[in-house]
Amino acid sequence: MRILFIGDIVGSMGRDQLQAHLPKFKQKYQPQLTIVNGENAAGGKGINEKIYKQFLEWGADFVTMGNHTFDKKEIFDFIDDAKKMIRPANFPEGTPGKGIGYVNVNGTEVAIINMQGRTFLPPLEDPFRMIDDLIEEAQQRTPVIFIDFHAEATSEKLAFAWYVDGRASAVVGTHTHVQTADNRLLQEGTAYITDVGMTGPYDGIIGTDREAVMKRFLTQLPVRFEATKEGKAQISGVVIDIDEKTGRAKKIDRLLFNDDHPFFA
Amino acid sequence: MRILFIGDIVGSMGRDQLQAHLPKFKQKYQPQLTIVNGENAAGGKGINEKIYKQFLEWGADFVTMGNHTFDKKEIFDFIDDAKKMIRPANFPEGTPGKGIGYVNVNGTEVAIINMQGRTFLPPLEDPFRMIDDLIEEAQQRTPVIFIDFHAEATSEKLAFAWYVDGRASAVVGTHTHVQTADNRLLQEGTAYITDVGMTGPYDGIIGTDREAVMKRFLTQLPVRFEATKEGKAQISGVVIDIDEKTGRAKKIDRLLFNDDHPFFA
Amino acid sequence: MRILFIGDIVGSMGRDQLQAHLPKFKQKYQPQLTIVNGENAAGGKGINEKIYKQFLEWGADFVTMGNHTFDKKEIFDFIDDAKKMIRPANFPEGTPGKGIGYVNVNGTEVAIINMQGRTFLPPLEDPFRMIDDLIEEAQQRTPVIFIDFHAEATSEKLAFAWYVDGRASAVVGTHTHVQTADNRLLQEGTAYITDVGMTGPYDGIIGTDREAVMKRFLTQLPVRFEATKEGKAQISGVVIDIDEKTGRAKKIDRLLFNDDHPFFA
Amino acid sequence: MRILFIGDIVGSMGRDQLQAHLPKFKQKYQPQLTIVNGENAAGGKGINEKIYKQFLEWGADFVTMGNHTFDKKEIFDFIDDAKKMIRPANFPEGTPGKGIGYVNVNGTEVAIINMQGRTFLPPLEDPFRMIDDLIEEAQQRTPVIFIDFHAEATSEKLAFAWYVDGRASAVVGTHTHVQTADNRLLQEGTAYITDVGMTGPYDGIIGTDREAVMKRFLTQLPVRFEATKEGKAQISGVVIDIDEKTGRAKKIDRLLFNDDHPFFA
Ligand SMILES: [Fe+2]
Ligand SMILES: [Fe+2]
Ligand SMILES: [Fe+2]
Ligand SMILES: [Fe+2]
Ligand SMILES: [Fe+2]
Ligand SMILES: [Fe+2]
Ligand SMILES: [Fe+2]
Ligand SMILES: [Fe+2]
Repeated sequence: MRILFIGDIVGSMGRDQLQAHLPKFKQKYQPQLTIVNGENAAGGKGINEKIYKQFLEWGADFVTMGNHTFDKKEIFDFIDDAKKMIRPANFPEGTPGKGIGYVNVNGTEVAIINMQGRTFLPPLEDPFRMIDDLIEEAQQRTPVIFIDFHAEATSEKLAFAWYVDGRASAVVGTHTHVQTADNRLLQEGTAYITDVGMTGPYDGIIGTDREAVMKRFLTQLPVRFEATKEGKAQISGVVIDIDEKTGRAKKIDRLLFNDDHPFFA
Repeated sequence: MRILFIGDIVGSMGRDQLQAHLPKFKQKYQPQLTIVNGENAAGGKGINEKIYKQFLEWGADFVTMGNHTFDKKEIFDFIDDAKKMIRPANFPEGTPGKGIGYVNVNGTEVAIINMQGRTFLPPLEDPFRMIDDLIEEAQQRTPVIFIDFHAEATSEKLAFAWYVDGRASAVVGTHTHVQTADNRLLQEGTAYITDVGMTGPYDGIIGTDREAVMKRFLTQLPVRFEATKEGKAQISGVVIDIDEKTGRAKKIDRLLFNDDHPFFA
Repeated sequence: MRILFIGDIVGSMGRDQLQAHLPKFKQKYQPQLTIVNGENAAGGKGINEKIYKQFLEWGADFVTMGNHTFDKKEIFDFIDDAKKMIRPANFPEGTPGKGIGYVNVNGTEVAIINMQGRTFLPPLEDPFRMIDDLIEEAQQRTPVIFIDFHAEATSEKLAFAWYVDGRASAVVGTHTHVQTADNRLLQEGTAYITDVGMTGPYDGIIGTDREAVMKRFLTQLPVRFEATKEGKAQISGVVIDIDEKTGRAKKIDRLLFNDDHPFFA
Repeated sequence: MRILFIGDIVGSMGRDQLQAHLPKFKQKYQPQLTIVNGENAAGGKGINEKIYKQFLEWGADFVTMGNHTFDKKEIFDFIDDAKKMIRPANFPEGTPGKGIGYVNVNGTEVAIINMQGRTFLPPLEDPFRMIDDLIEEAQQRTPVIFIDFHAEATSEKLAFAWYVDGRASAVVGTHTHVQTADNRLLQEGTAYITDVGMTGPYDGIIGTDREAVMKRFLTQLPVRFEATKEGKAQISGVVIDIDEKTGRAKKIDRLLFNDDHPFFA
């Protein structure tokens, strides 16, 4: 089974990229399942129902989130009904939404888990302890387990991936918005990449208006951050091949295209 | 002019990689200048004089450092005499060592600057303000200015690079130990990569013993971290071509080899 | 000379406390100089011109600020003309406002300095290095030097105070909003307290609505924090006696009153 | 019932203070139960069996700990047998030691709970969620519940205390090593103080050698921190009166003595 994952879609430019290019990606790579991270889809922070539905219309099968999940209030109106969206599983018990979802792909179930790191991030529940339970739950239904681990520190991401090596089919990192070049298979067969990277502005600073971010670093004054709205764009993703009998990954390739190095003529 | 930069060399495995492969890299890529980051060279934390001299013997022309610069006490004995080594320029005034150095490459001077970020790191002097002065100083002597920006957050690294775009020849990020795939030329000609990645253990966690790091995340107990001492290895670097008349970069390519994907048969 | 200092005035309840009780405090303690911290005066975050002027009308002679200085945009309209207000001196060069001010008290000048710590707070300029220069500047004019050190960590506050012991007349800590009981004279004559505490709501959580703060800790969801608007109130301050010939402090007493333990019948 | 609690005992000076003065405190205040925080007892970091036993010999009935619990390796040898010692309850499941203990005081049981905050501290389990369970467990046995909440941020400490107001007899804060002046009864009868303060050196920086800490702030270099070994001393504590029928507190008084303001002639 082939899974296409598209990294953090930021603002209107990110959404435009997805709409314009996802069909071509799907045609070229022929994934059976397409997952996108939507935590920055609405103006850079959070998501709303309209965007969630657009993602599905445009060809995504499932949406994962991250630390910005609840930044737009509209989320509370639809998250519990959004069957194709998950948020980090380690928000405290009682948090709206859920952290694990299942998709049926031609008769094979795929478990999709979203989890958030805690280094340099808020103290959610322990992702290491919690993943044990979630994997066990998922394994009752399927050997194919895909994890979006949304975290900042490379050490936490690598530690998490090695911790589940052989138990998950893939651990893809998100959140830093810069694609890493370390896509690989770990020793027991888990596909891994520290960060898939973002989709949206290519000349912003992790998707945000450049002048605003530089002003913040230079002045330490409060600055309003907004997703960059025009200019060159990029799209970041990975394609993962998984043996659906064993759940082990066979390959993980990176996709990284931008207006300087476009995918399609 | 071509510069080869090798990212954070971690422990004995990193040193062994450098010794074994640097000659071949130099033969293949024919750099005029080779710079290596040595902040983790001694057991994962800091450097000593013996290692510093070995790096030069093995073919490095210059050594940059980072937040671990002063972790080994021996550093204080030789840093002020180490003409081929710099540490982050934004340590407070009076700190042993210096943050900018110059190398003569076939008649052209190259300014090499080491600077450290502050996001999720200790509050050194402001790297944004300080780089203005250092670039101005360097520009008195040469248009070729190479910067190792040692930082954690992708936002700070990108902001810093865009801030000096057109004023520095290259900004290469170090510290996260995972190579990023975003090597590019910025709009005004500065070569950039968010992180070059590390050199040393391939199956550790950013170079550190895997079991120890996982234990730390799982137990929150004090754990002694040590550089991984055996197993597969990796080497991370970039090759940058710079127009020595203008100081603008022409190209930045990534190097990333490991025992699974080796460089040489 | 006697100085009365009132700690962080939070929101409308804090302002009401000041208006109602400052005259009585002044009558009882007979200070020659009254300084108030106003960083939380406008709804809990920042200050505006109207409030600044009210503070002076109500009997304050000078206003210090903190990390919330620039939270209300109006600040930029009047800070450069506000002769009786300072903000932390270690904001980067070029920041509107200033970090040191002078007041003439019956022929004796008093230098007032506002400085911010960096532990668990943004990376402003180094307060330790900067205070050397500011003290030297102030000593050209007067031996009486009062410092509001706005910081989080007890270690940084104590280190800062011991560092200037004998050079400043007083170091009063602000920012944590809880008064500490460690008011004392240090060995060389500097009056010190780790935190003066806040003025405003008595039953909030450091001045903020209790339910909102608890919700944040319980859910990790985004929560809108607002200053508590009704209920019991408190007022926190210190009274410091300084030998105006030598600049050494003779005494530092705490003031802490609330609706359970009121000052006046 | 009267409980005497002595705040973080730091190093040899702290231990000496306890040995010298605890008998006099007990004679004067006549507590039925004496609890001491020992997380800094061994050289400033951690505790060992010898010190633990000394504390009991010298008159303490129970020892609480904090973030330094496991800093001395010896702890693992005796913590599971130390019936009179608890560590923060929210270390991950499986951590040696326990977070709740019971003492019989003249026929009345007292539940003692140790919990650690997470703001500016490592991500232990959620103290807010966990305290609900522990209080419920304790209430099966007794209405008298004493909590040492070991935390950094005033907001988290106040939020925690208000959260358990009416369910715990007392919440005393520890960890910042500076006594706060806000001892009070909350609305539903829980005795509270943000921080009890430390016991040990009076002229150090939160118990640590002054020169070392100042050097760290001034240079950002690695510095070895050690508990101050000589000079003036202080002792910090609280005395709490609890109605053992209802578990509600009736009074909480602060104790703060030092060589400048000694308790005994
Ligand atoms: Fe994101
Ligand atoms: Fe994120
Ligand atoms: Fe490094
Ligand atoms: Fe580093
Ligand atoms: Fe404040
Ligand atoms: Fe503040
Ligand atoms: Fe402590
Ligand atoms: Fe502590």
